[in-house]
Amino acid sequence: MRRERVRDLLARVADGAVTVDSALSSLAQEPTESIGFATIDHHRALRQGFPEVVYGAGKTTEQLIEISRRIADRGDGVLVTRVAPDAAQALADALRGAEHNAIARTVFLRPTTPAAAARGSVLIVTAGTSDLPVAEEAAVSADALGCVTARLTDVGVAGIHRILARRTELDAASVIIVVAGMDGALASVVGGLVRVPVIAVPTSVGYGASFGGVAALLTMLNSCAAGVTVVNIDNGFGAAVAAARIMHG
Amino acid sequence: MRRERVRDLLARVADGAVTVDSALSSLAQEPTESIGFATIDHHRALRQGFPEVVYGAGKTTEQLIEISRRIADRGDGVLVTRVAPDAAQALADALRGAEHNAIARTVFLRPTTPAAAARGSVLIVTAGTSDLPVAEEAAVSADALGCVTARLTDVGVAGIHRILARRTELDAASVIIVVAGMDGALASVVGGLVRVPVIAVPTSVGYGASFGGVAALLTMLNSCAAGVTVVNIDNGFGAAVAAARIMHG
Amino acid sequence: MRRERVRDLLARVADGAVTVDSALSSLAQEPTESIGFATIDHHRALRQGFPEVVYGAGKTTEQLIEISRRIADRGDGVLVTRVAPDAAQALADALRGAEHNAIARTVFLRPTTPAAAARGSVLIVTAGTSDLPVAEEAAVSADALGCVTARLTDVGVAGIHRILARRTELDAASVIIVVAGMDGALASVVGGLVRVPVIAVPTSVGYGASFGGVAALLTMLNSCAAGVTVVNIDNGFGAAVAAARIMHG
Amino acid sequence: MRRERVRDLLARVADGAVTVDSALSSLAQEPTESIGFATIDHHRALRQGFPEVVYGAGKTTEQLIEISRRIADRGDGVLVTRVAPDAAQALADALRGAEHNAIARTVFLRPTTPAAAARGSVLIVTAGTSDLPVAEEAAVSADALGCVTARLTDVGVAGIHRILARRTELDAASVIIVVAGMDGALASVVGGLVRVPVIAVPTSVGYGASFGGVAALLTMLNSCAAGVTVVNIDNGFGAAVAAARIMHG
Amino acid sequence: MRRERVRDLLARVADGAVTVDSALSSLAQEPTESIGFATIDHHRALRQGFPEVVYGAGKTTEQLIEISRRIADRGDGVLVTRVAPDAAQALADALRGAEHNAIARTVFLRPTTPAAAARGSVLIVTAGTSDLPVAEEAAVSADALGCVTARLTDVGVAGIHRILARRTELDAASVIIVVAGMDGALASVVGGLVRVPVIAVPTSVGYGASFGGVAALLTMLNSCAAGVTVVNIDNGFGAAVAAARIMHG
Amino acid sequence: MRRERVRDLLARVADGAVTVDSALSSLAQEPTESIGFATIDHHRALRQGFPEVVYGAGKTTEQLIEISRRIADRGDGVLVTRVAPDAAQALADALRGAEHNAIARTVFLRPTTPAAAARGSVLIVTAGTSDLPVAEEAAVSADALGCVTARLTDVGVAGIHRILARRTELDAASVIIVVAGMDGALASVVGGLVRVPVIAVPTSVGYGASFGGVAALLTMLNSCAAGVTVVNIDNGFGAAVAAARIMHG
Amino acid sequence: MRRERVRDLLARVADGAVTVDSALSSLAQEPTESIGFATIDHHRALRQGFPEVVYGAGKTTEQLIEISRRIADRGDGVLVTRVAPDAAQALADALRGAEHNAIARTVFLRPTTPAAAARGSVLIVTAGTSDLPVAEEAAVSADALGCVTARLTDVGVAGIHRILARRTELDAASVIIVVAGMDGALASVVGGLVRVPVIAVPTSVGYGASFGGVAALLTMLNSCAAGVTVVNIDNGFGAAVAAARIMHG
Amino acid sequence: MRRERVRDLLARVADGAVTVDSALSSLAQEPTESIGFATIDHHRALRQGFPEVVYGAGKTTEQLIEISRRIADRGDGVLVTRVAPDAAQALADALRGAEHNAIARTVFLRPTTPAAAARGSVLIVTAGTSDLPVAEEAAVSADALGCVTARLTDVGVAGIHRILARRTELDAASVIIVVAGMDGALASVVGGLVRVPVIAVPTSVGYGASFGGVAALLTMLNSCAAGVTVVNIDNGFGAAVAAARIMHG
Repeated sequence: MRRERVRDLLARVADGAVTVDSALSSLAQEPTESIGFATIDHHRALRQGFPEVVYGAGKTTEQLIEISRRIADRGDGVLVTRVAPDAAQALADALRGAEHNAIARTVFLRPTTPAAAARGSVLIVTAGTSDLPVAEEAAVSADALGCVTARLTDVGVAGIHRILARRTELDAASVIIVVAGMDGALASVVGGLVRVPVIAVPTSVGYGASFGGVAALLTMLNSCAAGVTVVNIDNGFGAAVAAARIMHG
Repeated sequence: MRRERVRDLLARVADGAVTVDSALSSLAQEPTESIGFATIDHHRALRQGFPEVVYGAGKTTEQLIEISRRIADRGDGVLVTRVAPDAAQALADALRGAEHNAIARTVFLRPTTPAAAARGSVLIVTAGTSDLPVAEEAAVSADALGCVTARLTDVGVAGIHRILARRTELDAASVIIVVAGMDGALASVVGGLVRVPVIAVPTSVGYGASFGGVAALLTMLNSCAAGVTVVNIDNGFGAAVAAARIMHG
Repeated sequence: MRRERVRDLLARVADGAVTVDSALSSLAQEPTESIGFATIDHHRALRQGFPEVVYGAGKTTEQLIEISRRIADRGDGVLVTRVAPDAAQALADALRGAEHNAIARTVFLRPTTPAAAARGSVLIVTAGTSDLPVAEEAAVSADALGCVTARLTDVGVAGIHRILARRTELDAASVIIVVAGMDGALASVVGGLVRVPVIAVPTSVGYGASFGGVAALLTMLNSCAAGVTVVNIDNGFGAAVAAARIMHG
Repeated sequence: MRRERVRDLLARVADGAVTVDSALSSLAQEPTESIGFATIDHHRALRQGFPEVVYGAGKTTEQLIEISRRIADRGDGVLVTRVAPDAAQALADALRGAEHNAIARTVFLRPTTPAAAARGSVLIVTAGTSDLPVAEEAAVSADALGCVTARLTDVGVAGIHRILARRTELDAASVIIVVAGMDGALASVVGGLVRVPVIAVPTSVGYGASFGGVAALLTMLNSCAAGVTVVNIDNGFGAAVAAARIMHG
Repeated sequence: MRRERVRDLLARVADGAVTVDSALSSLAQEPTESIGFATIDHHRALRQGFPEVVYGAGKTTEQLIEISRRIADRGDGVLVTRVAPDAAQALADALRGAEHNAIARTVFLRPTTPAAAARGSVLIVTAGTSDLPVAEEAAVSADALGCVTARLTDVGVAGIHRILARRTELDAASVIIVVAGMDGALASVVGGLVRVPVIAVPTSVGYGASFGGVAALLTMLNSCAAGVTVVNIDNGFGAAVAAARIMHG
Repeated sequence: MRRERVRDLLARVADGAVTVDSALSSLAQEPTESIGFATIDHHRALRQGFPEVVYGAGKTTEQLIEISRRIADRGDGVLVTRVAPDAAQALADALRGAEHNAIARTVFLRPTTPAAAARGSVLIVTAGTSDLPVAEEAAVSADALGCVTARLTDVGVAGIHRILARRTELDAASVIIVVAGMDGALASVVGGLVRVPVIAVPTSVGYGASFGGVAALLTMLNSCAAGVTVVNIDNGFGAAVAAARIMHG
Repeated sequence: MRRERVRDLLARVADGAVTVDSALSSLAQEPTESIGFATIDHHRALRQGFPEVVYGAGKTTEQLIEISRRIADRGDGVLVTRVAPDAAQALADALRGAEHNAIARTVFLRPTTPAAAARGSVLIVTAGTSDLPVAEEAAVSADALGCVTARLTDVGVAGIHRILARRTELDAASVIIVVAGMDGALASVVGGLVRVPVIAVPTSVGYGASFGGVAALLTMLNSCAAGVTVVNIDNGFGAAVAAARIMHG
Repeated sequence: MRRERVRDLLARVADGAVTVDSALSSLAQEPTESIGFATIDHHRALRQGFPEVVYGAGKTTEQLIEISRRIADRGDGVLVTRVAPDAAQALADALRGAEHNAIARTVFLRPTTPAAAARGSVLIVTAGTSDLPVAEEAAVSADALGCVTARLTDVGVAGIHRILARRTELDAASVIIVVAGMDGALASVVGGLVRVPVIAVPTSVGYGASFGGVAALLTMLNSCAAGVTVVNIDNGFGAAVAAARIMHG
């Protein structure tokens, strides 16, 4: 159960709208649930503010549906990432009301009570059009975690005036996620322009000596702009969670 | 000139304590200063809230002294990292009042006006005693950037009860920096226990297949705890700046 | 011929149930058998306690059937690992009574005399649901080698309470196999909790900087919990044999 | 406090030799002890059968002496590995009765009560003379952990008859540790000859494409002899702990 | 034109069987032939004793047929390696009399005059059945280069007696090619048993930390048996040419 | 707008052929154009002499068509590289007059005014026939950038006389692009023969330890012929742009 | 003999200032000179416009002096790079008039006739002060090769306004050498700003995941600014030769 | 005992010069000798034609002297490679008549009976002067193994005419060892020029992306000249043994 819902429940107990027994029953659900091929961490919503997000790769469609349903049953919604197209369709059918974003490869069922909105917004900046799937995963995830998002697309450093022309948007953001493949240089430039947290996501866009995103990863880890932090290659989801940890701080 | 000092100056102009001409003269200093072997970015203090920090490695003692003096002359203090012992001594002598921290390999001259204190505190957690130099660099840097810091030392996962026994300190932190070499597993455990931002610093502690910190770096980039962000190996300074970006947000 | 069967045969000679000539004839089979594309090591069952296990990858279906039949003819059963689905079906058809486990990618024909049961049990722990195929290969193999197995699934360190809640099962095991991809951190935590042998199996679960399991492999090799040993990425079979070497010791 | 000593204490309470209050006082020592730069895991001796072993690299001599004394004060002895020659001398001076093994780079203080002896023996096999320091670290550690050890030195596969001539010793061992650099091929040969557990330790012996032990590490991870497990490059200590986990099982 | 044919031609000029003009005309063919997408090195047969061998990968079927025909037209035969199945069929159809070996992925048209036979024989030893395609490429190539070949298959070191039992064949060989994947340890054992040249071919057989044959490659480069030489991963052809260089020396 | 066209426009204003208002209107087009999934850098033609070239990989066919049309509308032509066959067909249909080169994987629409021709010519040399697709990409790109090109194909160093026989062509070139996979040695030989700029393009041709072109890349970076510069693996386009930068200097 | 000197000699023969015999004698010097441990390529000055440059690393002081003297004796001057301080002093003493640049680690003896000056100038841009030694090697080398040089120092992208403020210098250059370590991002930004050739030199400045310059190297190879070419890590000399090849074109 | 000496002994028994008992006594020496830290393979001289060569790195001076003496006592001479200068001096003093080659880092004691001379000669070719130590190790070793050697020094491909001018020497060799660092391209050129066996030795000469010889190693493994074989980086000794295996064939 998400923190917002527990707080709400306790408030309703306090003002008599809900009986102690009824509240107890809601809170008494097991923190973990074992279903043979998975041990679901239902406690995570309370501990970290969002329910366990399901990593879709390497799981069968049946497993995905079963795990997602168990989480959805708690009422906090559910987010599944890296879902193959076929599984995504089946999953969206199984979870009534869920949204399938084909570019982001996500299936998302909104919680019955919307997540507490964070102040400020997360700006997602991409170096090129080919980086969009990762940026989209970040955007869907940030939205699921209660963050308002904005975007700047295709503003890589080969034409440096593109990013310089957008200083207003950069200055308005509370947290910036920079998504870039190939040379990954955009993270350093953005990191030097702003004072807010910058989370860099290297992407596997490129070929040859990009080594599936390693080049961009190394660029970002060695950023000459101090304080830029980095997540795994193509990990738009992780960047969104990092942003949400900051936004809800 | 740091943001605090500019704000202060403008306030004093507003209430008549400083004349417009005098204030103009203070503000009219060049944003960059070229001294042959360096182009100092004096504008950084205003743009990012802290003056350019000097990376000591690969510079001669003479260069370090000259660059540091130019920055110190602006009154915002100066921090030099990764200084070899000999150069550190010479530098500390040249910058009256500067503190040399031998473990952290830093020389730090506090600004005349203290930096605006951030709310909350940064908790620096280390897996082992050998990780202390990196943690110390992070602590000195965070202090220089106006952050209150606390520490948990030698609480690696080989004795998991050590970290579990410190939940109170973990829960009290606004941002947590996890410093770990070898398997780097502590970052995942901490990332799963808290909801605040977690910045992981892999260290080069280890041997053989630790590959100078690569093992810990990869562990942290692949953390199964979502939203853990990572900086370069041994980059305590970078983690502190990332924390300061969050704390001053 | 497996050690149990030789011991049994000798016992029957001792009590007169089998004549010397008949026993001699059984024992006189060639220790190796050459069939053009393979040299089967029939002696292995006697030397190491289990017959040569057939590595299915890179062999044609015809080769697999031929090799498996030759081994099966000796009566000690046969285990084939890493079989592609099509080959597995053909193989299961060819070896009457063989079991095809699609998740583990194994085909297993039980020996006519069951293997001597080892004391104690092997506990197979997985960090996530996506690690199941490797865990399953370990379980089928351990079973084939005469070990009793138990499992803990999806108890990775992102929710550390999941593994801590299972101390009873951990303490009851004689040997523990930890199967984990991504950050591979579970091996260190388990290694620190128990005093029995811990065999770590990195898996190729993950993406980007997991480099096909290298991240987990390095984590495990650098485990801060002393005495954790490691096998190749995705090598559930190898972990099972290592466990059997210990269990039958 | 080591398991043997706790068991002994409880037995003496049972037969009246020690009062309950006195025993309680002995048991009431804190499981962890914080000394600023370290958090000592005193509970480890009880949990895992041997006290926390101190990793000497990256610690100052002062830190090593302080940590070692705290552990030694509990009476279970203390083992320090990877100690630089200077620190080793200072440490051996500070810990009365401690033995400094220069080849193994260890300092070892025996416990007042000897560790429970394990049944059987650990055979440490090396491919070449240059592998001796790692083998020696393994031997000292195994001894400290209560194991009887034996050795076969310089029996690498370039002269295969050297190892084949020693079948008797191989067959007599309960666990075999194979220490080899360069091609690391000895582990596969030994693994194919015996049925007991084989723990392979790659060493950094070699040059060029040995890449500091990576070649031997990969050889061992890919051993065609099933069930060979591997520890980190040059990690003689880890191999000894793995052996002790098996021997005390 | 191959050396044998030139020598034969000159002999026939010497004894009057061929006129000077006719011989001149045969010898006057251009040493290289440009056909737009290729520059064929017809001189190679004379310079190195065998015609240019065509590397099939990355060429279109049309290019393969055109290049092969040009070479075949000179009468020295032609060997094409690494041909995809479809292209192989088309190529075999286009070159009347050519043999397609599906396992070796070769298409070979024998020369009209057989190559001069080398003294002695090349023994091709494989560690496992899965190494056969590379061994087969070596065998076809060695045959094309005029060498007599013999084979030992599936005699890897996990069952060391398999290779030890074949000392007679090892001792009879003039050159030995060892083909092995996974740990690649067989090359060191063979290299230590014989005094003739040993050429090691690592194969990409394996998974995980075999890294597509890198593990075996490194093992072989670091062989503790002195004087073992190595060719590229899966390069059966190259090993055969190296053997032929020795055999025809 | 390309430099040539701006220069032409200004000349026409100067001689009265175009009114100031009309010219202003032409020049007033936005330097960047945002279309949701892309920010087109129209200014690049003026700044660098050629319009933004579209990198086709990782973009949908719809995105490619939309971006290409926007660029084509400015009248400077458009070049799209690394287009999959299906997308290429659709793109060639959408851009009337565009040429699809299947080997080079390019779609190219010539500008209405031809680019200013550079003096001299670019010679593209390939080591083998399998390197042709990369060479073709370089040739199409160089042509699009206004360079005259010539070629030498399949002149690798295994038959060193092939390149030595072509000194005339080498000496006639203004810039030489060397395209080679496998050992990449051709770049060093050419670099040592000529005094003009040599741009080396490693290709992914090869297998095993060529590691997808890394071997050739390293060879070229370590060329013992001084002053050879290198671009990314398979980056024929980049080499062409580098050549054009030189040719138009 | 350098091209300029040969041209001059021929002119003097043409106008009778030098006799044919005397000129013949000058031209008759051997193109290569063997001195046991070296084969000097005297022909290189004529073929490539500058004499063989001596790579100082790995040669003894005696070898360096001997080789340098032989080259200097031809009158075209000599440049030695990567000379250790001790050897540099001895070499500067041995070659009368030679200049030792301690930062660049070069010893340079100017030719008696100055090299033909190239039109335009080479601009050497560095990201940070620590990159200066490599930049200095490039500057000394370019000077030796007859190029006029200019510099921009410490203008890395963390303060992007530093490079943007220097557009005039960037636009005035004929060739730009960008020297940068850490993230190496400066090359992409400069490459996007100018249309002249850009040669990127990664440096080993940095630590941790900079991997001795690999991070910067990969960034530069993957530059999103098209047509940036790259030389080896720390190869200031190579960049200068590449620039000279262009400048003298 | 070396093969020559055994053959000689047997001949002398045959003609009565030596009694059967005396010969038996000579032959009865143990094939291996254990001296605690080493197991000497005395049988190797008979099996492979030369005594065990001692690898000096990682052994103490005392160990080197002891092992060398035991081998020398058998009368077949002894070769020690990779000896540090201090140890070399002590070793040369201890082994009366031994020669210390400082460049090759070898200590060599000639056998009392010279080794059987091989027909033909081994040509050792180096790309540059800095490759000499490795070439010298090869030359000393080949000499010790009974081969006649010749040399070509500093004939790298940057001046291709240097190697082309030496065709006579290349054609006269029975086996060619090519020693080259940096780009390692010389091996491919030589491999294409001759038909005899070519053994390539990559050296660690170079910097940056030479990665300690990896660049040259990969070049040689991917040689486009077929049949070039490769040994470990800097392994001059191994190349000499490989040559001797061929020469004595």
